[in-house]
Amino acid sequence: MRVRPRRDAIIQRLRLEQPRKVKSYRHNVAVHWGDTDPARIVFYPNYFEWFDQSCRLLFDSVGLDWDSLGKKYGVTGVPIVEAKAKFLAPSRFRDEIVVESHISKWNDKTFEVSHVVMNRGIRAVEGYEIRVWAHRHPEDPNRLKAMPIPPEIRAAFE
Amino acid sequence: MRVRPRRDAIIQRLRLEQPRKVKSYRHNVAVHWGDTDPARIVFYPNYFEWFDQSCRLLFDSVGLDWDSLGKKYGVTGVPIVEAKAKFLAPSRFRDEIVVESHISKWNDKTFEVSHVVMNRGIRAVEGYEIRVWAHRHPEDPNRLKAMPIPPEIRAAFE
Amino acid sequence: MRVRPRRDAIIQRLRLEQPRKVKSYRHNVAVHWGDTDPARIVFYPNYFEWFDQSCRLLFDSVGLDWDSLGKKYGVTGVPIVEAKAKFLAPSRFRDEIVVESHISKWNDKTFEVSHVVMNRGIRAVEGYEIRVWAHRHPEDPNRLKAMPIPPEIRAAFE
Amino acid sequence: MRVRPRRDAIIQRLRLEQPRKVKSYRHNVAVHWGDTDPARIVFYPNYFEWFDQSCRLLFDSVGLDWDSLGKKYGVTGVPIVEAKAKFLAPSRFRDEIVVESHISKWNDKTFEVSHVVMNRGIRAVEGYEIRVWAHRHPEDPNRLKAMPIPPEIRAAFE
Repeated sequence: MRVRPRRDAIIQRLRLEQPRKVKSYRHNVAVHWGDTDPARIVFYPNYFEWFDQSCRLLFDSVGLDWDSLGKKYGVTGVPIVEAKAKFLAPSRFRDEIVVESHISKWNDKTFEVSHVVMNRGIRAVEGYEIRVWAHRHPEDPNRLKAMPIPPEIRAAFE
Repeated sequence: MRVRPRRDAIIQRLRLEQPRKVKSYRHNVAVHWGDTDPARIVFYPNYFEWFDQSCRLLFDSVGLDWDSLGKKYGVTGVPIVEAKAKFLAPSRFRDEIVVESHISKWNDKTFEVSHVVMNRGIRAVEGYEIRVWAHRHPEDPNRLKAMPIPPEIRAAFE
Repeated sequence: MRVRPRRDAIIQRLRLEQPRKVKSYRHNVAVHWGDTDPARIVFYPNYFEWFDQSCRLLFDSVGLDWDSLGKKYGVTGVPIVEAKAKFLAPSRFRDEIVVESHISKWNDKTFEVSHVVMNRGIRAVEGYEIRVWAHRHPEDPNRLKAMPIPPEIRAAFE
Repeated sequence: MRVRPRRDAIIQRLRLEQPRKVKSYRHNVAVHWGDTDPARIVFYPNYFEWFDQSCRLLFDSVGLDWDSLGKKYGVTGVPIVEAKAKFLAPSRFRDEIVVESHISKWNDKTFEVSHVVMNRGIRAVEGYEIRVWAHRHPEDPNRLKAMPIPPEIRAAFE
């Protein structure tokens, strides 16, 4: 017998289908000659540099620049733990691309920032960064210790 | 009736389970001051630049530099379609790191290159690139068309 | 006997003292985290990257993008022959700097582009690039041959 | 009455005319794909990045790494004040170039590092950096104050 889905499962699915609006940032990037390689397309590590820029600009845009976070919460930046990109279409010299970024997932001590690069209306690159909320380790200043993300940080993006 | 697997299928499966030794490349990289950021660690997009270098050096090391591939097979480089990295430990100015690279998976038209960055004996970064064997599209020179990878290319890494 | 300067010489000198207004370009650059080094200031090679961007944007701004120049005049880009910068004050993450560029000198086959980087009203960097108007060498396609700059190119900046 | 120059002044002048052999550093650089641009030659700001690397390696090679200098002498790095390069011949992907660097001039508070890039036996680029021996300014920690270079620093390169 196939059971009916429970009511909270339905609600959960609706949430996924109609996600709460979260704040996003649109970061305009002009592709310069020096960003491109002999194949005349953007050399791919540059996209990760633009992801990094966009992540910081996204935090700045909600009033949470990382220097202030360090002073207020003791975090030492918000270090990268994972980054990935899929390259769907090339970008070229003089293209005006847009990196659209939002926080797509909150975990206890880490979060995921999703980035989509649009170029002339087409999806050129999509990817994400996972970053960790980290303090300097109390026993070893050369190491970091992941810490729970304060709820007001998450709330600032909603 | 469930047939018994044929003998060559068994061998194939054993091969997958006990992978043949494939050729790898060890790429030494000196971390320079300009590779590091105000957190005094490598700015992460640089790792992808070193992945790209290592992938080309791996091909060079088996006698398959991409310029020659273009002339012989008509491929237009071996463009990136996906790249990912996990950052396990930071690297700093003056660290002498090693990027160890090998082709970890062959598909019909794409392949995956795995990269591990070792720093003083510890695993600092691990990641991969997926690249596509591509010709210029016969109907549109601005587009690429994925093509089956010739078996001798794969054989060159074994 | 000391002769009086001729009238056209006087006019020439006045011209030098009161130079004709030439077109310039103001290129806004946001300093990103990844542009700075562990000293928390811009890593200096980046300024030359911004000079290169500004030089191309200056040409674009008068309708002379270098791709079109190649098609119309047969030049193969406008290669760099010399670049210099004086670093007067540091720039930091989040600074919004402006690179102001104009062509400061025309020679027969080369020209000089002057760049000044302003940061919050102070002169942070000043420098120049010298570039050459070059065709592919008729006897060796791997070499370039400097050619006289057409007068309409110079006129476009006045 | 015009005095005759003292003997040690004569020797000093002879020394300047027949310069003592100074220590130099040869920095091998592999030109990677990502260092080149759509013109298929090295994008010129990279040469300044290699100059910066070579300058640090030159100091390291005589046992004067800049981190230790900071601890011993209170200098905050050795910041750049001027950089210049002449581009004599292009370098391309896979070229193995050598940056040869030595300190070409000592002033009271600054010094000049000369760099020559050799590529397959030809002089590809020549240039210099001028750097300043600087402490944090006693009245304003955001500014630097140039200081006399200790004689043992200069002696270490002879």
